Amino acid sequence: MTIRAKSYRYTTSLQWTGEKKGTMTVAGKPSVEVATPPEFKGHEGIWSPEDLFVASVNSCIMTTFLAFADHAGLGFEKFESEAEGLLEFVDGKFLFTKIVVRPRVTLRSGEDKGKAEEILHKAERNCLVSNSIRTEVILEPAFG
Amino acid sequence: MTIRAKSYRYTTSLQWTGEKKGTMTVAGKPSVEVATPPEFKGHEGIWSPEDLFVASVNSCIMTTFLAFADHAGLGFEKFESEAEGLLEFVDGKFLFTKIVVRPRVTLRSGEDKGKAEEILHKAERNCLVSNSIRTEVILEPAFG
Repeated sequence: MTIRAKSYRYTTSLQWTGEKKGTMTVAGKPSVEVATPPEFKGHEGIWSPEDLFVASVNSCIMTTFLAFADHAGLGFEKFESEAEGLLEFVDGKFLFTKIVVRPRVTLRSGEDKGKAEEILHKAERNCLVSNSIRTEVILEPAFG
Repeated sequence: MTIRAKSYRYTTSLQWTGEKKGTMTVAGKPSVEVATPPEFKGHEGIWSPEDLFVASVNSCIMTTFLAFADHAGLGFEKFESEAEGLLEFVDGKFLFTKIVVRPRVTLRSGEDKGKAEEILHKAERNCLVSNSIRTEVILEPAFG
């Protein structure tokens, strides 16, 4: 007998709108403008594929943390996180070699610092976007 | 002598806003609401990390195509693309095993079909997000 876990499908649609720009849509969600960034001869002030990639890692670690924190009964008041992706030219190709993720959690009790740190690392290891990428993810947690 | 190509950094910030939700910001760009999707006990109608991941692949192939098409002088009137990511549970972890990308290009001249197809495949191979992920990317081009 084979036990198969559930699988899920995520569909996004993209419509080119001229120059180096387009509109991304996901059914039932607000649309997001995307464009080539200025450093690759594109546009200012619009989300780029690079931003979306770094944002997917950053937000996946947060949502995974929220699930584990909930389960562990961790009390916290604030959560914020900055993620910085490094795009480098390696063996003739551009790729993200590293993303440093800096979550800052404001805990209800300072005594929970060790527990919170453990949950953050567990979230990074189990985040489904982390699992899907070649990029090294470095977690640098802080507690407010 | 070492020749180093330029590297680039992309920073996104995330602020938890309660429940399973947050706000993503990139300096000088519109903010995007993100949340755990409903299938993982989150919220309807808000971009999820999964959506952002699939969108980063979809948009990166478009922006890379636009650069190569420009360089090759390819004439086209419309470009749209649907990307479908498959999230599966493998060896105890969820990850994206496959993304099918379906670009549809409306060419000025039907004779450019072969050239357009070649440029699309070159775009997929050179897309910096494709280069950064473990997920298999399958390109299924169509021409309108």
